[in-house]
Amino acid sequence: MSQARIVYLNGDFLPFAEARVPIMDRGFLFADGIYEVSAVLDGRLVDNEAHLARLDRSLGEIDIANPHTIPEWIGLQTELVARNGLTEGLVYMQVTRGVYERDFAYPPAGTAPTVMMFTQAKTVAANPLAETGARIITVPDLRWKRRDIKSVALLAQVLAKQQAAAAGVAEAWMVEDDAVTEGSSSTAFIVTKGGALVTRPLSTALLPGITRKAVLRLAEEAGLALEERLFSVSEALEAAEAFYTSASAFVMPVVAIDGHVIGEGHPGAHTRRLRELYLDMARAGV
Amino acid sequence: MSQARIVYLNGDFLPFAEARVPIMDRGFLFADGIYEVSAVLDGRLVDNEAHLARLDRSLGEIDIANPHTIPEWIGLQTELVARNGLTEGLVYMQVTRGVYERDFAYPPAGTAPTVMMFTQAKTVAANPLAETGARIITVPDLRWKRRDIKSVALLAQVLAKQQAAAAGVAEAWMVEDDAVTEGSSSTAFIVTKGGALVTRPLSTALLPGITRKAVLRLAEEAGLALEERLFSVSEALEAAEAFYTSASAFVMPVVAIDGHVIGEGHPGAHTRRLRELYLDMARAGV
Repeated sequence: MSQARIVYLNGDFLPFAEARVPIMDRGFLFADGIYEVSAVLDGRLVDNEAHLARLDRSLGEIDIANPHTIPEWIGLQTELVARNGLTEGLVYMQVTRGVYERDFAYPPAGTAPTVMMFTQAKTVAANPLAETGARIITVPDLRWKRRDIKSVALLAQVLAKQQAAAAGVAEAWMVEDDAVTEGSSSTAFIVTKGGALVTRPLSTALLPGITRKAVLRLAEEAGLALEERLFSVSEALEAAEAFYTSASAFVMPVVAIDGHVIGEGHPGAHTRRLRELYLDMARAGV
Repeated sequence: MSQARIVYLNGDFLPFAEARVPIMDRGFLFADGIYEVSAVLDGRLVDNEAHLARLDRSLGEIDIANPHTIPEWIGLQTELVARNGLTEGLVYMQVTRGVYERDFAYPPAGTAPTVMMFTQAKTVAANPLAETGARIITVPDLRWKRRDIKSVALLAQVLAKQQAAAAGVAEAWMVEDDAVTEGSSSTAFIVTKGGALVTRPLSTALLPGITRKAVLRLAEEAGLALEERLFSVSEALEAAEAFYTSASAFVMPVVAIDGHVIGEGHPGAHTRRLRELYLDMARAGV
């Protein structure tokens, strides 16, 4: 706030208003690019190496050579966080296949990828929504079949999130073949009345959530029973607790789905405990 | 060639190298935009009003207000074609939800859409590939479920076209549930040994092709039997003829699919006739 916002673009740290990409950027024309988001808490990146590893994996899946090593990425992120005086919020990273005359097939080898990063200041720890819990809706999952790739082809997610916004709620869980796949920008979890933590197993149908992975590890350490399996909307409505995870929402309690109250209608005990454990981990800089 | 390339961006006709969009453009971050392509032949736009009608329809499906009336669009296209001295090729148009701080849900009402147009000089009529016929491959259809919307979320199509390029062929037909949906940037047709023209009926599974519609009308006028129904790859391999249509390929004969020769291995008589009829229509400026 106190200083001009700085973004990173292709080697330069630039004033926000000057950061532009050519109209022939394949990110703009074809959604031919990958992105990642890492949270920043107390000025430190949270679980960042896992995000950078997923960035590398996503890029590889669509044949874009990662333009930076992990230490280079961390150097750029750290400098961007410092230049923006960011203590809490997120760092967004995007890599596209670069700029070339429009044609669906890849441009020639050697075409430089576009690398862009910006920060957003945001209250991620003391988020009021985590106190009250979020209401959500369910929507049909319209996405493509390689949801394990974190690409910028996000139109289906935009439409899902907008349906949530129009309904006055925070998130939309996407449903396919009677099972919840994931949220429009999060991973979906329920806690059964028997006390088991349930989330969908990894496949090409959903993103391998970084926060999902950390929460599963924390839940296991806390002695919760884990069930990686599909669950339906009706099972979620009958659950004791529900929550979703993402790099910026951390662990977000869900208190209503499609207008039906979940559990007691306030954040559940397991959910609150997992959010605390996650925040402890994030603050410890792990 | 003889003059500097000019593109259109948000009200201005600009030198190509100056046309840039802010990194927060939702086309770049979310593939939150729509596009269209009209061919230009003898300096005239081909079947253009149908493309502009589809642009309007696609925009409406994702709640972007069309920034221009049809006459306004035609005025902009015509001026762009003139400024580039284009006699043969195509005009590309793209509209995104505009520039706003990154958040999945729509930006506030009143956020100005981004409008961008450029031309590409290209031999569309005397295309040598139409003489020899194109070889194609088939690939799994990875796309989302609203393929009737011509959005810039084209990563699946990019990957399909790249597979074709890597195989040394011109196009990839996408296959789902054992049926051909469409090409990566075209509509798929076969002619059966009984002489019937077969193409998939319109649904959310494929784009309502403008050239498809014109070719069906021309085929009907020429007395061909039409069958709008699903067909499989194995049926295509046994067909007498095959071809695909698009705004810039017009009617493109297919002579091999996945290495299997189709018919006699050269462009079929019905296909050649339909290409001629289409070119006549295009030249007549209909």
